[in-house]
Amino acid sequence: MVVVKANEIQAQLQQWVEECLPWAEKGETAGYIPALDKVPRDILGVAICDLEGNVVEAGDSDFEFSLQSISKVFTLLLALEDHGPEVVFNRVGMEPTGDPFNSIAKLEYLRPNKPLNPMINAGAIAVCDLIKGNNIEEKFDRIRNLVRKLANNPHIDLDQKVYFSEKQTGHRNRSLAYFLKDVDRLDGDVEDTLDIYFKQCALTVCCRDLAYMGAVIANGGKLLETGEQVVRPEYCRMAKAFMVTCGFYNGSGQFAVEVGIPAKSGVSGGILSSIPGRMGIGVVGPALDDKGNSLSGEMLLAKMARHWNLSIFV
Amino acid sequence: MVVVKANEIQAQLQQWVEECLPWAEKGETAGYIPALDKVPRDILGVAICDLEGNVVEAGDSDFEFSLQSISKVFTLLLALEDHGPEVVFNRVGMEPTGDPFNSIAKLEYLRPNKPLNPMINAGAIAVCDLIKGNNIEEKFDRIRNLVRKLANNPHIDLDQKVYFSEKQTGHRNRSLAYFLKDVDRLDGDVEDTLDIYFKQCALTVCCRDLAYMGAVIANGGKLLETGEQVVRPEYCRMAKAFMVTCGFYNGSGQFAVEVGIPAKSGVSGGILSSIPGRMGIGVVGPALDDKGNSLSGEMLLAKMARHWNLSIFV
Amino acid sequence: MVVVKANEIQAQLQQWVEECLPWAEKGETAGYIPALDKVPRDILGVAICDLEGNVVEAGDSDFEFSLQSISKVFTLLLALEDHGPEVVFNRVGMEPTGDPFNSIAKLEYLRPNKPLNPMINAGAIAVCDLIKGNNIEEKFDRIRNLVRKLANNPHIDLDQKVYFSEKQTGHRNRSLAYFLKDVDRLDGDVEDTLDIYFKQCALTVCCRDLAYMGAVIANGGKLLETGEQVVRPEYCRMAKAFMVTCGFYNGSGQFAVEVGIPAKSGVSGGILSSIPGRMGIGVVGPALDDKGNSLSGEMLLAKMARHWNLSIFV
Amino acid sequence: MVVVKANEIQAQLQQWVEECLPWAEKGETAGYIPALDKVPRDILGVAICDLEGNVVEAGDSDFEFSLQSISKVFTLLLALEDHGPEVVFNRVGMEPTGDPFNSIAKLEYLRPNKPLNPMINAGAIAVCDLIKGNNIEEKFDRIRNLVRKLANNPHIDLDQKVYFSEKQTGHRNRSLAYFLKDVDRLDGDVEDTLDIYFKQCALTVCCRDLAYMGAVIANGGKLLETGEQVVRPEYCRMAKAFMVTCGFYNGSGQFAVEVGIPAKSGVSGGILSSIPGRMGIGVVGPALDDKGNSLSGEMLLAKMARHWNLSIFV
Repeated sequence: MVVVKANEIQAQLQQWVEECLPWAEKGETAGYIPALDKVPRDILGVAICDLEGNVVEAGDSDFEFSLQSISKVFTLLLALEDHGPEVVFNRVGMEPTGDPFNSIAKLEYLRPNKPLNPMINAGAIAVCDLIKGNNIEEKFDRIRNLVRKLANNPHIDLDQKVYFSEKQTGHRNRSLAYFLKDVDRLDGDVEDTLDIYFKQCALTVCCRDLAYMGAVIANGGKLLETGEQVVRPEYCRMAKAFMVTCGFYNGSGQFAVEVGIPAKSGVSGGILSSIPGRMGIGVVGPALDDKGNSLSGEMLLAKMARHWNLSIFV
Repeated sequence: MVVVKANEIQAQLQQWVEECLPWAEKGETAGYIPALDKVPRDILGVAICDLEGNVVEAGDSDFEFSLQSISKVFTLLLALEDHGPEVVFNRVGMEPTGDPFNSIAKLEYLRPNKPLNPMINAGAIAVCDLIKGNNIEEKFDRIRNLVRKLANNPHIDLDQKVYFSEKQTGHRNRSLAYFLKDVDRLDGDVEDTLDIYFKQCALTVCCRDLAYMGAVIANGGKLLETGEQVVRPEYCRMAKAFMVTCGFYNGSGQFAVEVGIPAKSGVSGGILSSIPGRMGIGVVGPALDDKGNSLSGEMLLAKMARHWNLSIFV
Repeated sequence: MVVVKANEIQAQLQQWVEECLPWAEKGETAGYIPALDKVPRDILGVAICDLEGNVVEAGDSDFEFSLQSISKVFTLLLALEDHGPEVVFNRVGMEPTGDPFNSIAKLEYLRPNKPLNPMINAGAIAVCDLIKGNNIEEKFDRIRNLVRKLANNPHIDLDQKVYFSEKQTGHRNRSLAYFLKDVDRLDGDVEDTLDIYFKQCALTVCCRDLAYMGAVIANGGKLLETGEQVVRPEYCRMAKAFMVTCGFYNGSGQFAVEVGIPAKSGVSGGILSSIPGRMGIGVVGPALDDKGNSLSGEMLLAKMARHWNLSIFV
Repeated sequence: MVVVKANEIQAQLQQWVEECLPWAEKGETAGYIPALDKVPRDILGVAICDLEGNVVEAGDSDFEFSLQSISKVFTLLLALEDHGPEVVFNRVGMEPTGDPFNSIAKLEYLRPNKPLNPMINAGAIAVCDLIKGNNIEEKFDRIRNLVRKLANNPHIDLDQKVYFSEKQTGHRNRSLAYFLKDVDRLDGDVEDTLDIYFKQCALTVCCRDLAYMGAVIANGGKLLETGEQVVRPEYCRMAKAFMVTCGFYNGSGQFAVEVGIPAKSGVSGGILSSIPGRMGIGVVGPALDDKGNSLSGEMLLAKMARHWNLSIFV
């Protein structure tokens, strides 16, 4: 990874960051997770990484934040590597929902009672349960290792405060997990599976990490410098498809129509983008819209997509 | 449009058609529309059209069928041209639903009560209501004209039998339309709007027409031979995004994850595909899966996407 | 029928009317039916009728209003007389819903797709479709005749203005009816069935009529003076059960728990009560609570039930 | 309590038991609670108790079974005594639902997110949370004491096997409870509240106990022999209203329409009935219909209601 500084692209990014930052005022940080509630709203950082590993950054690109829902992409990739698509998609569907990320109603109404996709909480918890390992430590280690490898950053680790905060207040996720247990969509112990889930959500990164991971996924799962194939290309392809159809909770459609790039957001304000064959983008802006997506982050991505023609629909 | 015959590509397509045809046996024609119920199941046709207008066909490519839900793409484009995105998306949302195409429950539960997207029936009816014109004849004429222009085929017209059949039995669509009227999402007369909707669904095409239209949309709305800009590029981009997130009813996610090309299906068995910057594809196979999509048609597109690397997520 | 005047009971009723009238200020008339929107809010009338036919009135007991949902009780009785319970409850369920009176979502979710009970709009429309007769005039005549007979009032007729108003603006009811047609729960022509439904809703009565009808139902279907058995006792029993479980839309439970008498309300502000073996009560107060029930009417009934020990749960 | 033997009524009851027993073959025991799954299906017992405390029994009236959902009546009564109706009905609604007893969807859809009534699982768990006491032992003791007092049987206690079985497999109830916690409808610790809930469900009784309790409730909360007022009459009245509108899960409406007596069933096959001013009835028949109610038990009550004119709607 080569961090390129002070060039034209950097200046352009910096200008856009300044233009988009005011949107943060219209949003709110994720109040329902106590540890996230105290984060300042007026932060906006971005990093881009091309497929050779050249990185350009602007704004608060050093700001560290937890992956939250962005982690769902990586556990999906690991579960696919562990079991293949047939097993995974027997446990969780492939359809976007139109419902909020923490909705439970469709789990009850639909037959079979399986979560509609791996990007909503219920689906991600079900996917967590599939990760191989002899115990929860081993399972979580394997997730963390994949994240570290994809980000080319061996220092990524979980934020204990965020982890404890979510473990303590994650009543809705417990409700979803026990429902899954009741309808036989969870093999493991419910609290163990939730523990892995809360831990993966608390893995802490910065924009640079997201940009690099996005570039590796854009590169079909091959590490940028060594060319090592960490994840199969077809699983990276699937991940990008889910990022388009389900990456922004019940705001996914709008982002696809208006911006048109594969991306996954998290309630910490981070967004991971992966432009097939071109680059990865990492963004963070903790102020969220009413669907849980970074307001200024979406604005910034929209600007980049428009000016650099990044939409996959053109 | 130049129809290219008996070359290598044609031979390849023909072979794939033969390999995919047997899937039709597992499907059913759309029994709920009497006029469609009598169509033979063992039909499979395909046509592709590159951005220069070269067309290659195979199988039952001359078979004529009604557009059905594929027409939703064209009324959306016309409504966008008539009013711009702000007005259109004030009337209808941009989110995929996870519900069947004719579902009404979300219209009641969600606030505001607007159809989640223009590709489900409720949304398409709401979009119909936006088409400009002094009366229903004029409105329908404008839709037909757009379809003819995009297909480079001035002979496209409605199948009276299909139109009457749906007009007579379209109780669910009436239920949706009166619900929209009740929640103030329909300005015009309900029966008038439904009449336009039933007519656009009954417009009759063959695979060649779909392929050409798909190519024009892939070309950003410029006619292939004359370069005339019929629809704005950004609206074509939006249409392709909807085709990915909502093109196959509540099977859209699976098609995006497994095949990954913008496409819109109809219950007549037709599928319109538009590969950005590359080509259009028209497919027809009247035997449907349980979500209303052409079974052998999906198989054929999956084969083409895999062998020709058509996925937009690679 | 003997109207008893100026006795002690009358004085008591008059006092309660005056005490309850102020509640009307907190309610609204049914704005969604134009003809009902213009009714003054500060009306409150009551009449009681014992099983010998002695009637006592107070307040605006001469005020005339349309039956609206109260008519659902009478078409249910007539359908039961026409076909017996097996046929009727094959078409419509017996369960309270917890949903608003005009809800459509459960029609889609539940299997079989039948309206949960005959007191919600969808169920009442389905019951209308069962009424015997060679044409809609004959069918409506039979309903009107039953109402006249039960009320001992041959002058009861429909209010043309209310009928036209609802026929013109009844989009939600049309939506429900076409949905029923789509799921094969309606044999007749949709508009014909709706016409009967709108007409029965527009039948105009005063409190005295309601009180008398309530008394006949309380009397097991026998006319008070002649003893003629107009409706079978077991059907009257069923009607009273429905009045308790479903008589106040999604406020039925609260009325059962707090007041505890069989009663059916209508959005015109009328309430029909039938105390088994004791009396009938008719009330009218056009200002409604947010569930569509007469606010001051409920208050008045609660007062009467408490002071006279009318609850069937004591 | 005087158990009357070998008289005419006893003979009549015994005959009805024999006539209704065969219905058990069409039902199933509650397979989802392992401890209940092993119970023989061909059991049917009944006891009646008049307001003087005279008891007549027939069939398997000595068979012991756990209260299960019948316990919801008693915790409701205790919560009402502890806090009064305003507090209780601020936590839980009064409306029947039309949904299964363990449904969670409405908790998400409805605003405010409160359980619709205290007779569904979510509502009963919310009511449990209201019971006064310094710790869960004290709270449960108070529930058990009320049950013992109402049944005039100081030996009633919990079945440890049933309790452990439900505690271990009660994933759906955990899902409901954590959902309630998430929407701030549960003050206490979730597992503590569930522990009380599972314990109250496991309290073990026989038909005689149910009959006596039903008689005390029918008697307005006064003990039959001593006349001690254990529960206020208005709370008994409310309990009987809930038994009519919500006593048989989503089969409550049908039982009200066809039988018409206040009764509460449990998945152990028990049914508690309370005929205002007349008697209590206890029934047990472990084979359930598809809604979770005792099949032969319902048949037996229907027979008794018809022959003895017990319906409160006559």
